[in-house]
Amino acid sequence: MKILVTGCAGFIGSNLVDRLLISGHEVIGLDNFSTGRQKFIDNALKFTKFQFINCDLLSAESIGKYFDSVDVVFHFSANADVRFGTLNPKKDLEQNTIVTFNVLEAMRKSGVKKILFSSTGSVYGEAAVIPTPENCPFPIQTSLYGASKIACEGLISSYCEGYGINASIFRFVSILGERYTHGHVFDFVRQLRENPNSLNILGNGKQRKSYLYVQDCVDAVLLALLSQNEGVNIFNLGVDDFCEVNHSVAWICEEMNVSPSLHYSGGDRGWIGDNPFIFLDTKRIQQLGWTPKLSIKEGVIRTVQFLQNNDWVFSEETLN
Amino acid sequence: MKILVTGCAGFIGSNLVDRLLISGHEVIGLDNFSTGRQKFIDNALKFTKFQFINCDLLSAESIGKYFDSVDVVFHFSANADVRFGTLNPKKDLEQNTIVTFNVLEAMRKSGVKKILFSSTGSVYGEAAVIPTPENCPFPIQTSLYGASKIACEGLISSYCEGYGINASIFRFVSILGERYTHGHVFDFVRQLRENPNSLNILGNGKQRKSYLYVQDCVDAVLLALLSQNEGVNIFNLGVDDFCEVNHSVAWICEEMNVSPSLHYSGGDRGWIGDNPFIFLDTKRIQQLGWTPKLSIKEGVIRTVQFLQNNDWVFSEETLN
Repeated sequence: MKILVTGCAGFIGSNLVDRLLISGHEVIGLDNFSTGRQKFIDNALKFTKFQFINCDLLSAESIGKYFDSVDVVFHFSANADVRFGTLNPKKDLEQNTIVTFNVLEAMRKSGVKKILFSSTGSVYGEAAVIPTPENCPFPIQTSLYGASKIACEGLISSYCEGYGINASIFRFVSILGERYTHGHVFDFVRQLRENPNSLNILGNGKQRKSYLYVQDCVDAVLLALLSQNEGVNIFNLGVDDFCEVNHSVAWICEEMNVSPSLHYSGGDRGWIGDNPFIFLDTKRIQQLGWTPKLSIKEGVIRTVQFLQNNDWVFSEETLN
Repeated sequence: MKILVTGCAGFIGSNLVDRLLISGHEVIGLDNFSTGRQKFIDNALKFTKFQFINCDLLSAESIGKYFDSVDVVFHFSANADVRFGTLNPKKDLEQNTIVTFNVLEAMRKSGVKKILFSSTGSVYGEAAVIPTPENCPFPIQTSLYGASKIACEGLISSYCEGYGINASIFRFVSILGERYTHGHVFDFVRQLRENPNSLNILGNGKQRKSYLYVQDCVDAVLLALLSQNEGVNIFNLGVDDFCEVNHSVAWICEEMNVSPSLHYSGGDRGWIGDNPFIFLDTKRIQQLGWTPKLSIKEGVIRTVQFLQNNDWVFSEETLN
């Protein structure tokens, strides 16, 4: 297949591209390195079947030509950080909602009929049902990030209905693993590299979160690529478990062999719009035969190892 | 109170403005007559407490100044026609999603802390539960219009969480009554004025829909204005009933004293993304003491009477 991947130099996108290339697909990767990294596509660039395009997906006019004769679009570019939404509310609107509209318009004009999309468990806000299934009670958005992703989901679903497109939409918990460059493990490792004796933790550390290892995530996405060929298919992706932020802190400290004093900012939320309990019901994707291979703890440890072995990621701008 | 109303020359917005002025409020009305009508604000312009601003809400830079010292925003401007979304998908994105973002940004920058918003029952797509309550299972969007309104709802909710704003969000069924200028009653009356012997009906006429009279709608909105002062409050608005399109056709023909032959386009949907059964559970707003005064039939008849007495509405561009 000829596959177009947006956000091909990002954390999940670049891992996905590597797997698609190994499977023999022709891949066109789009990225502008706003959060992606050049080094994350070094491997992909060794494949003749990989074509990289440096472009800004906000520029609707300039991207259309890359969608010609494409069979499938993986739309994985995003402003993926839920935490800083209120500092720059326009960013989620532009990078998520409007970019997704531009991608859908490019697909419509080129006749591309299949899209796979990285949404988020953040669309559940503070869920009324935990573990949260895909058809839980209609949630109220609490973050600009979640709001922008639900806007994307709505656009994709209505394009499916209106123009005969087929979509798989993945509502992720936080993803961990190689090429992870933002989020709590990143923040903690960075702090502990600078000062192994002290660690600042947002909230009271008792926030309960779920995580998934990136290769398990990619397994699920590729399974949906092959098995979901009609209509709109929505899948939660996560492990059947959750941990407290405090557990994650303990695993990170053990792996880094440090014993810092812990300083909590207090409260049951790390930031405005933070969800103190994220745990998704993943029966629907499991019924397709998928099951994650790594536990949350194993995912955290692999992430710490990646960060320790790739300290260049700390020397570049990462939180934009 | 000093109240800003977007879409002040529109169907619902102009009826709302008249009621606000009668109640003694100071009203700033914004409209660009893209779907609103000059004649709909003729009455409002007689009030010294009414200020009309002709402006385009897509122009974020130019609207901010009107929000200074405003107490409440009624954001009622919209591209309100669900039917033509696939002909121009950018319109719902711009006129609904991006305009709502611009309104919220203007509120944030001016410190306005209260918004009332006209959403739609279309956000339920093809609802799994009927009558559909506000917390029904997480729906999948089937129309670009519904998708844009759920994007607006998400933006508003996350602004409430992020910036301490208070919102009431109304998910309407179709609204009928004086100043109604688009939708099936409008289409049918126009056809029958041109040729009383023949009527073309989209679908098989068995689509089941619910409607609400505009003054009943405004009653509910004003009740929420006074009673809902914290957080995000979502209300379905509709009558406790539904009718078939065929029933509506019979009432219209009786009121117009015509007996046309009926020509159905066929199928259980009038257009792509049409919902063959809309019926909302309105217990939540009824618990505040609201109840609609007019039945669907009475609303249809009043609408026909308005259209017959105001035939100028047919002589202007109406379907933009």
